[in-house]
Amino acid sequence: MTLDQARAMDAADPLAHYRAQFVCPPGVIYLDGNSLGQLPLATVTASANAITQAWGERLIRGWNEGWIDAPQRVGAMIAPLIGADADEVISADSTSVNLYKLIVAALRLDPSRKVVVSEAGNFPTDLHIAEGAVAAVAGAELQVVERAALPEALGDDTALLLLTHVHYKTAARFDMAAWTKAAHDVGALVCWDLSHSAGAVAVELNAAGADLAVGCGYKYLNGGPGAPAFLYVAKRWQEKLHNPLSGWMGHAAPFEFADGYEAASGMKRWLTGTPCVLGLVGLESGLKLWADIDMRHVEAKSAALWNIFHVAGTAAALECVTPTDPTQRGSHISFRHPQAYEIVQALIARGVIGDFRDPDIMRFGLTPLMLSHEDIWRAGEILREIVASGRYRDPEFAVRYAVT
Amino acid sequence: MTLDQARAMDAADPLAHYRAQFVCPPGVIYLDGNSLGQLPLATVTASANAITQAWGERLIRGWNEGWIDAPQRVGAMIAPLIGADADEVISADSTSVNLYKLIVAALRLDPSRKVVVSEAGNFPTDLHIAEGAVAAVAGAELQVVERAALPEALGDDTALLLLTHVHYKTAARFDMAAWTKAAHDVGALVCWDLSHSAGAVAVELNAAGADLAVGCGYKYLNGGPGAPAFLYVAKRWQEKLHNPLSGWMGHAAPFEFADGYEAASGMKRWLTGTPCVLGLVGLESGLKLWADIDMRHVEAKSAALWNIFHVAGTAAALECVTPTDPTQRGSHISFRHPQAYEIVQALIARGVIGDFRDPDIMRFGLTPLMLSHEDIWRAGEILREIVASGRYRDPEFAVRYAVT
Repeated sequence: MTLDQARAMDAADPLAHYRAQFVCPPGVIYLDGNSLGQLPLATVTASANAITQAWGERLIRGWNEGWIDAPQRVGAMIAPLIGADADEVISADSTSVNLYKLIVAALRLDPSRKVVVSEAGNFPTDLHIAEGAVAAVAGAELQVVERAALPEALGDDTALLLLTHVHYKTAARFDMAAWTKAAHDVGALVCWDLSHSAGAVAVELNAAGADLAVGCGYKYLNGGPGAPAFLYVAKRWQEKLHNPLSGWMGHAAPFEFADGYEAASGMKRWLTGTPCVLGLVGLESGLKLWADIDMRHVEAKSAALWNIFHVAGTAAALECVTPTDPTQRGSHISFRHPQAYEIVQALIARGVIGDFRDPDIMRFGLTPLMLSHEDIWRAGEILREIVASGRYRDPEFAVRYAVT
Repeated sequence: MTLDQARAMDAADPLAHYRAQFVCPPGVIYLDGNSLGQLPLATVTASANAITQAWGERLIRGWNEGWIDAPQRVGAMIAPLIGADADEVISADSTSVNLYKLIVAALRLDPSRKVVVSEAGNFPTDLHIAEGAVAAVAGAELQVVERAALPEALGDDTALLLLTHVHYKTAARFDMAAWTKAAHDVGALVCWDLSHSAGAVAVELNAAGADLAVGCGYKYLNGGPGAPAFLYVAKRWQEKLHNPLSGWMGHAAPFEFADGYEAASGMKRWLTGTPCVLGLVGLESGLKLWADIDMRHVEAKSAALWNIFHVAGTAAALECVTPTDPTQRGSHISFRHPQAYEIVQALIARGVIGDFRDPDIMRFGLTPLMLSHEDIWRAGEILREIVASGRYRDPEFAVRYAVT
């Protein structure tokens, strides 16, 4: 792969024009859009208008002029990206809080099933929240096993199989249809965490027969730091599952101010408190960019970017821990190296922003809307130079930084 | 009270200069700052900088440059307004979600105490969430009684007395010290909802010996629509209570990515998922206005505004449902009228924005930082005219609007 070849791929890229719709800081090649997506230019205006016009001028009237329905509206915009119907998705709270809601709800569905099965090394908050959720249902327990042991862990006591579709470290992707079927075969439900999937790969929740899902608004969906998350409940479960965080915004008639809780029908019952409007405004603005995008183009470009960076990493003798089959991975690539932390710091010093993940993983997000093939080619050259030069051994790269 | 008298009070008002620090839409007298506080001018810039500079330019590095500690930093800014120490308050999630955390935690403290006692007619989400919270603890139950029956409802099975300090409809204020003592006398904890108190009246949680509290960021604290909420845990309980929503941001070492949950010490354990940064930026900006404010001035001005509007309402033959003793109320005033809804609509048509609350309450927030005595005098004149003219009977005022 040469620079000219990368440029030729950019010239033929049907997604190339999206790059100009994001703020791209000069001197930076940003390979961390899987942790915090870049700022869409349109969000600057959308947020300013929400603050100065809707909040500043309209004040409380803003609730009737777009805010109160924002969770459903944003959910409906996410739905086509994850293979769901518009009335099966709602935006609310954080991914962690939404996980708690769905795990507890699933555990309460059938008193004979008390086990939540999940994978060791799953994204920590999924396991942490599952610990909290099983404590809220008498007799429930969490069983965390290695990936290879998942099939035998499923049984007639399994209430829920809780999996992250694309692994946050390795990018390894579960076969959604197969694992959904495996859960259903023992009579369990499945909940998919789509945090590293939505906007990264084509997701087909309904085609896979999935039951529940959650996901993140601030990664590939470009909603802004700590943007509201989303949750999905397949239509057939919507009147059978109940939100344990039974707050007023999920009430059937919140403005009648009744003492007793009565769940709204549909996805609205998964709301809890007053939604963070400024967060929703950012997420809605980010999602507008996705309206006309064909996920096949996204997957094809992701694969092309991946190949360019994989060549560079391999040339630098780095061990790739991400599956080489594009259907078995998400849209990031991770290498293992004993000095992964220092290499990531050396890359950042050269303007290539990636992520370090304990203990020895360097992770690079390949966001097809924001990155050109030339970007990745250049980043690959810098990676090769740093590893070849040993420059990452410089003590200046010893200061640890924390990212999400 | 004459217009000249009101103007003379403005001339002597030590808080008068704050009004110019908020966006005040022309033609509007905004008496709904207890539902959604006005936009501080400084927030326009603070939010724009957070978006274009911190997010847009610094991207993931923003987490190390102020975002990750924002919940604690904002909590510490709220602390002096509620009589707490800086390390007893943290900003997180919504009031509803925080209520759930604290109610469940309190119920799990002592297995012999299983009853949450609260007041009929409390703000609905407090009761709705309490329903959900007792369902998460085996044997727990919620007992909702009229205010007069609260003392006899407390007993040696009471785990928690859950009260809203200032009532959302009537503005009636509980004596925090007396009711905290009543809970302690039976060995129970108390949790105060400060949503209509923080920034409205002087609150002294620690002086009262309070245990737990939650509150809202978007009312008197001017954090913006759906701004993050806050919670308080008295220092003596901080290592004894556990967050049931055990997410990664409350982990002792979130970036070590361990499978098992281990709670952080101090208030950090009450975090759950990734905080909504854009919401926290708005709240922090709003709180900066409070740094130099003496709550005695706020209470004195609130009382003066209240008196002006009370005279107007009484002259209009409206029944005031708010206590006349300023120490027994918050910073809003409510009148009862069979056509309360229509009167509120007629007021809005004249630029006086108040709130209707089912079934027959009109509610007016008197926010001392944003309102002048002249504003309230003018609003009172308009109220008197509308009631006297019967104009509120016009069918145009029949369109219902929903507010929070």
